Amino acid sequence: MDFITELSERTEYINNEIYKYLPNQEGRQKTIFEAINYSVKIGGKRLRPMLMLETCRMFNGEENEVYPFMAALEMIHTYSLVHDDLPAMDNDDYRRGNLTTHKKFGHAMGVLCGDGLLNLAYETMAKAILESGNIQVAAKAFEVISKKAGVYGMVGGQVVDIEMTSHKEDIDTLNFINELKTGALVEAAMMCGAILANASDEQVENIERAASKIGLAFQIQDDILDVTSTSKELGKPVLSDEKNNKATYVTILGIEKCKEKVKELSDEAAQILGEYNTNEFLHELVMFLINRKQ
Amino acid sequence: MDFITELSERTEYINNEIYKYLPNQEGRQKTIFEAINYSVKIGGKRLRPMLMLETCRMFNGEENEVYPFMAALEMIHTYSLVHDDLPAMDNDDYRRGNLTTHKKFGHAMGVLCGDGLLNLAYETMAKAILESGNIQVAAKAFEVISKKAGVYGMVGGQVVDIEMTSHKEDIDTLNFINELKTGALVEAAMMCGAILANASDEQVENIERAASKIGLAFQIQDDILDVTSTSKELGKPVLSDEKNNKATYVTILGIEKCKEKVKELSDEAAQILGEYNTNEFLHELVMFLINRKQ
Repeated sequence: MDFITELSERTEYINNEIYKYLPNQEGRQKTIFEAINYSVKIGGKRLRPMLMLETCRMFNGEENEVYPFMAALEMIHTYSLVHDDLPAMDNDDYRRGNLTTHKKFGHAMGVLCGDGLLNLAYETMAKAILESGNIQVAAKAFEVISKKAGVYGMVGGQVVDIEMTSHKEDIDTLNFINELKTGALVEAAMMCGAILANASDEQVENIERAASKIGLAFQIQDDILDVTSTSKELGKPVLSDEKNNKATYVTILGIEKCKEKVKELSDEAAQILGEYNTNEFLHELVMFLINRKQ
Repeated sequence: MDFITELSERTEYINNEIYKYLPNQEGRQKTIFEAINYSVKIGGKRLRPMLMLETCRMFNGEENEVYPFMAALEMIHTYSLVHDDLPAMDNDDYRRGNLTTHKKFGHAMGVLCGDGLLNLAYETMAKAILESGNIQVAAKAFEVISKKAGVYGMVGGQVVDIEMTSHKEDIDTLNFINELKTGALVEAAMMCGAILANASDEQVENIERAASKIGLAFQIQDDILDVTSTSKELGKPVLSDEKNNKATYVTILGIEKCKEKVKELSDEAAQILGEYNTNEFLHELVMFLINRKQ
């Protein structure tokens, strides 16, 4: 089977698993159940849950242990997009070619849908911890996700991103933003895959380092695509960052230097993962994500 | 010592404990650290952490075990207020006589401060679980809080509240909103106090029933005060619910019936708590909260 077909099948498999954790009840609060389902199901590459699952497989972990954490992490990623799209933030009407959650369900429901998703992520992990065969390890995975998602992780990156108003930001600030805003959840994904497969502390640290490089390479590639891709390929307006007058790796380093940086980071990540070298699909996935065209 | 002096001293004690869990680091994301500290420290009765602590004491629990959960629950309560005050929701400029978080720090930071607080609550619980002497019990407390805070709890109540646009709502809808929006976190507070003190499942269920009645009585009293109190006593505009064209217990039942209901619910709660009858302060606190003038 070629990689693209394999990728598509595995994405479908992941969707099937994570959708099981979405609310399917009736209830007076049905609007938020609909908004949560809508916001998760309008798509995405499922990069984070896939990296978690494949890292778990690399360490020969028990797959059942990671499913709730995969769902939880994708919920956290989705809530961050829903809130990022709000008028008070990036004010985006479309995401991946679909109406953003607040455009479809109203502004208040956009706020509450994000809140509900973030909380549901933790509710899902709480159940998983109590049902886990290894409560200590499951609690450790929860701790990593909570740390990487919060004010010392993703939210911290969003804060500095929001406050950035100039094209001419220094590279340290841009690194800080991207390591936290994008990198932190990629790190959480791969670290949880390793932790839940009972990897050693040293192995988890190595995986964190590799994930950090993958996250950064992914973000730089995103910035490159933002200026080189067409709107149709990308599913969102091209030059959206430029429109918002934000510095990106491209505005600071230029395209050629960005491409070099992506190559360098992906080589380093591959080298770390190569030490474990037991998951060819994970290797191909990382290379694909970093060199993608959309 | 009279009750009011005792209450004030215990509130101070609780503030001292929960402030330890707030971010005090420097960092590029310092705006959110400031916003989080501001939003928590502009006050509040600390009802939820106090109920948790006193319930723990009633069951002779280890106080150190509850401090991080007290802080976490107050963070969740605070995030819900920060987001409730947003222009997309209730659009309030003042809370307890102070500027609301989004008025002071900007609209985007209001969204992110709420997100950061909610996540910090879980980060705090994650650390507490890993450090707890009884990981199973601590994980159970986390599960209860996550359930009561989310789409089947507080957020679910907020959704139905936001969708309510008429004075003439039926009493079932109003009960649903208040049981979830206010009641759920009061239940979480007292249940966690009991759980962390190793109370039995039956005891935790009884505490949940009592807490549900206390939460509802508290809410009805709030509705009464909204029409009978002065703005200065209340620290927020009087008739704010009427301004927003919302049904309240007063608009549906009338003031006299509301007062009867508060009396009835508080008697029932007192009866349940009376079975344990080992915490006079908790009893006085409940009576005070329910019969308060502000």
